[in-house]
Amino acid sequence: MRQSHLFTKTRKEAPADEVSKNAQLLIRAGFVHKEMAGVYSYLPLGVRVLSKIEGIIRREMNAIGAQENRFATLHPSEPWKQTGAWDGVDVLFKIMSRTEKEYALGQSEEEIATPIAKEYALSYKDLPLAIYQIGQKYRDELRAKSGIMRGREFGMKDLYSFHATQEDFDRYYRVVQEAYFRAFSECGLIAKATEASGGSFSEKLSYEFMVLTDAGEDDIVYCDTCSHCANVEVSSEAEGDLCTKCGQSTLKKARASEVGNVFDLGQKYPKAFDFTFTDAHGEAQYPIVGCFGFGTTRTMGVIVEKHADAAGIVWPESVAPFAVHLVDLSGSDSDKKEFVEALYSDLLRAGTDVLYDDRDLRAGEKFADSDLIGIPFRIVIGKQSTPDSIEVVRRKDGTVTKVSRDAILKGAWHF
Amino acid sequence: MRQSHLFTKTRKEAPADEVSKNAQLLIRAGFVHKEMAGVYSYLPLGVRVLSKIEGIIRREMNAIGAQENRFATLHPSEPWKQTGAWDGVDVLFKIMSRTEKEYALGQSEEEIATPIAKEYALSYKDLPLAIYQIGQKYRDELRAKSGIMRGREFGMKDLYSFHATQEDFDRYYRVVQEAYFRAFSECGLIAKATEASGGSFSEKLSYEFMVLTDAGEDDIVYCDTCSHCANVEVSSEAEGDLCTKCGQSTLKKARASEVGNVFDLGQKYPKAFDFTFTDAHGEAQYPIVGCFGFGTTRTMGVIVEKHADAAGIVWPESVAPFAVHLVDLSGSDSDKKEFVEALYSDLLRAGTDVLYDDRDLRAGEKFADSDLIGIPFRIVIGKQSTPDSIEVVRRKDGTVTKVSRDAILKGAWHF
Repeated sequence: MRQSHLFTKTRKEAPADEVSKNAQLLIRAGFVHKEMAGVYSYLPLGVRVLSKIEGIIRREMNAIGAQENRFATLHPSEPWKQTGAWDGVDVLFKIMSRTEKEYALGQSEEEIATPIAKEYALSYKDLPLAIYQIGQKYRDELRAKSGIMRGREFGMKDLYSFHATQEDFDRYYRVVQEAYFRAFSECGLIAKATEASGGSFSEKLSYEFMVLTDAGEDDIVYCDTCSHCANVEVSSEAEGDLCTKCGQSTLKKARASEVGNVFDLGQKYPKAFDFTFTDAHGEAQYPIVGCFGFGTTRTMGVIVEKHADAAGIVWPESVAPFAVHLVDLSGSDSDKKEFVEALYSDLLRAGTDVLYDDRDLRAGEKFADSDLIGIPFRIVIGKQSTPDSIEVVRRKDGTVTKVSRDAILKGAWHF
Repeated sequence: MRQSHLFTKTRKEAPADEVSKNAQLLIRAGFVHKEMAGVYSYLPLGVRVLSKIEGIIRREMNAIGAQENRFATLHPSEPWKQTGAWDGVDVLFKIMSRTEKEYALGQSEEEIATPIAKEYALSYKDLPLAIYQIGQKYRDELRAKSGIMRGREFGMKDLYSFHATQEDFDRYYRVVQEAYFRAFSECGLIAKATEASGGSFSEKLSYEFMVLTDAGEDDIVYCDTCSHCANVEVSSEAEGDLCTKCGQSTLKKARASEVGNVFDLGQKYPKAFDFTFTDAHGEAQYPIVGCFGFGTTRTMGVIVEKHADAAGIVWPESVAPFAVHLVDLSGSDSDKKEFVEALYSDLLRAGTDVLYDDRDLRAGEKFADSDLIGIPFRIVIGKQSTPDSIEVVRRKDGTVTKVSRDAILKGAWHF
């Protein structure tokens, strides 16, 4: 894409009321537009990143046999009243229609997913069943802070699983946990799974997926030798204690941000909706339900917090808005201008996802924009460039290398 | 995908309160789940169709230089009050938060898109600017009917364009019109563009894209010789009149459904948000704004209305949930069972998007389900099948042909 065509421009300053690093950088670089506290629109660069994060978690969900849906977000009030959440969930947005019907906005989708599962899962042969969606969620937060990391409207992948037995839920939890670890890792994050307290709609235990970041809202202790990790809010363990799980190492303490969670909801929702299946002995049983959340916009925010430096964002390659940033510094040199235009066309032909800074600006402005936007590799065409020697810069550490035009078209801009 | 894994099952009956053909068929075949009047969840088969429709319109929008965004759907009340739509738009859902802040749910996005454009379009050099999104819309309809064709929550592609001059808007309208005609045509629909009355938020003329269908809510007259078309509600022309545009043919009358629309909004929104750009003479000017809607879920509903027969849905290939339906009728013949399993694996390897009915059901049940779901081609493996002769049936007309296994793997299931 030509940068002269990209309608967003970088800004020197973020809005004065925006204190979080992720929102400041994302607004300055033109990824998001703030509508109000906790609500952002995603602009073309932001849509590219979010779509890649969604693609990563979608692939992982499909790989473990979960089936994609798009649940309604405007809900009738009846199922919420049936489960008690209409009055019990304080962040639930409620709407009164012109005809005085009450609706809720989805903040989680048990009230929609459970009746759908009830309709199709009649026998133990239909279980386990795992259905998910990727979409918007709404929460009436008293205070929205942390930029896109905690919103009143936000993006989420939410998976609901239905099991014949507790053992099958426990097995599936481990399957999803591995999928989550892979997804977060591909997003450039290191996630740890903690045991934590139940949420307002949980009967039983819940687990949290935490990413180590100073911008986090939680304190965790974790073991480097085994996978043990606990939220200090609900754990009696402290930094320096010997790990209670492996007994091999002392625990470390860190700030962390919750990017995913699991609720073992037991039989609460099936009981509310009178949802039973027929087991192998012909008996009616309530299934065990799990809810697995993965914050897509939140993950984008955490990535920015983790991967940024004084000059701007440093996207991991897996979620970068473009793979490579081609910067034209040919100035008044028409031969070089022709050279960079031809290179851009050839990169597109080679299937490279390239942002081409073809704007008439000074080198300093172009480099500052490029650093702020944070595309992983930068190809610079200046007066010194020749077909045998073109400068490529790696954003994350500034490493510079020289590559031939032919090598670049074969993908050697990536090193 | 194995049909034994697909969690939805077909149903003999739709809910009693569902009168529209599109919703009846989509519910019975397992594409959607009704949450309440005008609100549906999309199940895996439905997600596949909707994603394809979205892909078609996304490609057309990108091809005309429009840039994709995801605008917030939970809106602050301030911009709605600024334009007068807070009190002026009767279908606007309003929400009161716990902290007594008022929000609106997006029913159109001028109130979000215009301030975003204002931030980035400063000069005539930044115009024209075309920004769009594909997402959910909400309307507080008094009556929701027509299944997924008119909802309280529905999917839409909405494009907002900003122009320095009226002439440029007029030029761009023709560009978008051609893109829409291509998109509807690829969806298996024939669309006509009418001139129609302005909507509640329009200052000026609006245009409608209508698809001829008996399930439509409008009456149009149109000319077969030229492109002339008018909504009879706003036209004095009648069936049998000589076309006022080309004078060549007499007008025909038909029922039609509105699947897209264009509003020439003039300078109303820029004036409300004090959005000016600097023209070539250094003068501040208000841009001209266009809004171009394309109903994605509505298009899905109209496709079902247009392409269905007594046995079920008949998807056009471009939007079908799967390209081909492989039906196993091997019964107790273990050699044939092995044959169909190997064919399924090889079709997947060949990159074919195949639904494989591997369920243990009678032929009649499998064919009835296959007809109802409406995948364009069906490969049937029964006792008579040999590597040289496999039956392929075209859904839309029941044409049967025999093809070899090798030819099938080369795509000859498609004829």
